[in-house]
Amino acid sequence: MMLSEIGERRIIEELKKFLDIGDDAAYIRFGYKYLILTTDMIYQETHILKQMTWEQIGMLIVTVNLSDIAAMGAKPVAFLLGYGSPDISFDNFKTLIKAVKKQCERFDTKFVGGDTNQTEKLTLSGTLIGISEKPVLRSNARVGDIVAITGDLGSASLGTRILMKDGVNKKKLKNPVFKKALEPEPRVKEGLILSKYVNSMTDISDGLSISIRDIAESSNVGIEIELDKIPIDDRTFNLAIENGEDIMKHALYGEGDYELLFTINKKNFEIIRNILSVYKIGRVTKNKEIAGVDSKGVRFRIERGGYEHFKSKHQKEKA
Amino acid sequence: MMLSEIGERRIIEELKKFLDIGDDAAYIRFGYKYLILTTDMIYQETHILKQMTWEQIGMLIVTVNLSDIAAMGAKPVAFLLGYGSPDISFDNFKTLIKAVKKQCERFDTKFVGGDTNQTEKLTLSGTLIGISEKPVLRSNARVGDIVAITGDLGSASLGTRILMKDGVNKKKLKNPVFKKALEPEPRVKEGLILSKYVNSMTDISDGLSISIRDIAESSNVGIEIELDKIPIDDRTFNLAIENGEDIMKHALYGEGDYELLFTINKKNFEIIRNILSVYKIGRVTKNKEIAGVDSKGVRFRIERGGYEHFKSKHQKEKA
Repeated sequence: MMLSEIGERRIIEELKKFLDIGDDAAYIRFGYKYLILTTDMIYQETHILKQMTWEQIGMLIVTVNLSDIAAMGAKPVAFLLGYGSPDISFDNFKTLIKAVKKQCERFDTKFVGGDTNQTEKLTLSGTLIGISEKPVLRSNARVGDIVAITGDLGSASLGTRILMKDGVNKKKLKNPVFKKALEPEPRVKEGLILSKYVNSMTDISDGLSISIRDIAESSNVGIEIELDKIPIDDRTFNLAIENGEDIMKHALYGEGDYELLFTINKKNFEIIRNILSVYKIGRVTKNKEIAGVDSKGVRFRIERGGYEHFKSKHQKEKA
Repeated sequence: MMLSEIGERRIIEELKKFLDIGDDAAYIRFGYKYLILTTDMIYQETHILKQMTWEQIGMLIVTVNLSDIAAMGAKPVAFLLGYGSPDISFDNFKTLIKAVKKQCERFDTKFVGGDTNQTEKLTLSGTLIGISEKPVLRSNARVGDIVAITGDLGSASLGTRILMKDGVNKKKLKNPVFKKALEPEPRVKEGLILSKYVNSMTDISDGLSISIRDIAESSNVGIEIELDKIPIDDRTFNLAIENGEDIMKHALYGEGDYELLFTINKKNFEIIRNILSVYKIGRVTKNKEIAGVDSKGVRFRIERGGYEHFKSKHQKEKA
């Protein structure tokens, strides 16, 4: 059986049989605290849009890792970069490295080192170490919890889709929707605040539908989403219409939004909504279904969807 | 200016101007201890011999990182794997992951997680987190120190050279010299013991000559090596003769030996030689030369040499 017949999620399921993995980041006790550890690789062909500048690529490798640390409600501390590329100019390389450093500094993280290699295609591997007094897991959602999210959805996925269709088109980039695809921001500050109030949390960079399922399955509960509560920015909505794209599909199954999905009890939600901009999109249910309810009250099953490596092209196109 | 015109070492020199890097691994204070952090990438085309099994590849990505932790005299704690490959069978993938886990366990390290990606060529990025009460740096060699090493040299580099010339030749692999090229072992236990006695330390996986220079330049001293003291195993010596290879060049400039090079005062060296198998190969001098002395007492300059990424093919061939 080849990896492509299995898909990333099932690979992880299989690995879980002999490895102790399965949250946004790993955690190990260290004295009276926890070290939070995560690594994420980005590869030219699958993760880097042609329109991205060297600066944006540098930011991205930090962001994807910061988002995993944020999802654990942890404070990022130190970053390491594994760098592989074909022969490029030293100026472009420095621009990338300086962007890595700047993005680290913006989130109070030390860029402590790395490794450089010659590879055929640009391949960046980032590792982030964070600390937490009590990491927030996916597995603690409780029946009756509110399901909420830190920002509007669908823009990164929609922006990516249009940029991929259009190749390099600088005029297009003026629409701020594209900025969410090219320069996503991790919710580090929000994750730290939320960590004191939420029961479970994950980032949704692989897609909302997958992340909902991750929380539901890890916590052994169901989740019901009210589709008309999913926050979608007007500019995103309009751009989708202009381009004949179904924005709801992007919001549910699209990847690249580095928002945090969390479950929280009602009392804490009232506290949090006064501190952060958060959106209630559903609730945790006792029955183990992952369901959506549309504006007319019609219930339907939310498919897994979302992006997975080692899946056939056809399945990727769904997102 | 392209990266290939600069070379990995000078890239690191340039990066040092705005990044705080430069030892085998980074270290950050964490309460009363130090976290030791390192990341190393291995890439099919440049690091993986055709004769390597999936199991050996899995061991190698852990070993290269363990060796950096060992060189800091630190205790390894947790390992993360960034995995990228073309579509391979799930069985081969599992063999590799299980070997990663096994190699971690052999050195009391927890394999805590990772990331899988689809890439054209096998690309593995490992990150190791260790702890230390006082990391051993390259920069503390003192004039008068003995320069010593934890094992015999040249075998990994010689073995690699012959295996690359011969393609896949299973009969050859019976000679144990090849095992050092295919299955190098990190000196974790030795590093931990040495940390209590040495003044400076580094691993020599990039070549002895580079490592000597790293210690000398970081410590602002010179080093004199007695060539006939460099330990070379008889089997390595004989294999070199059979293959018309200059074993001294492999020992001085070849990469892939995961031994530790350290400087230590005479008193501590006497203690250490009763605990570990170590070899005195030279001494730290006040004048800032990196010199060799041959058996006839003739002095000569030891060139930089060793392996660097982003260098022209010609320069690599020197090793």
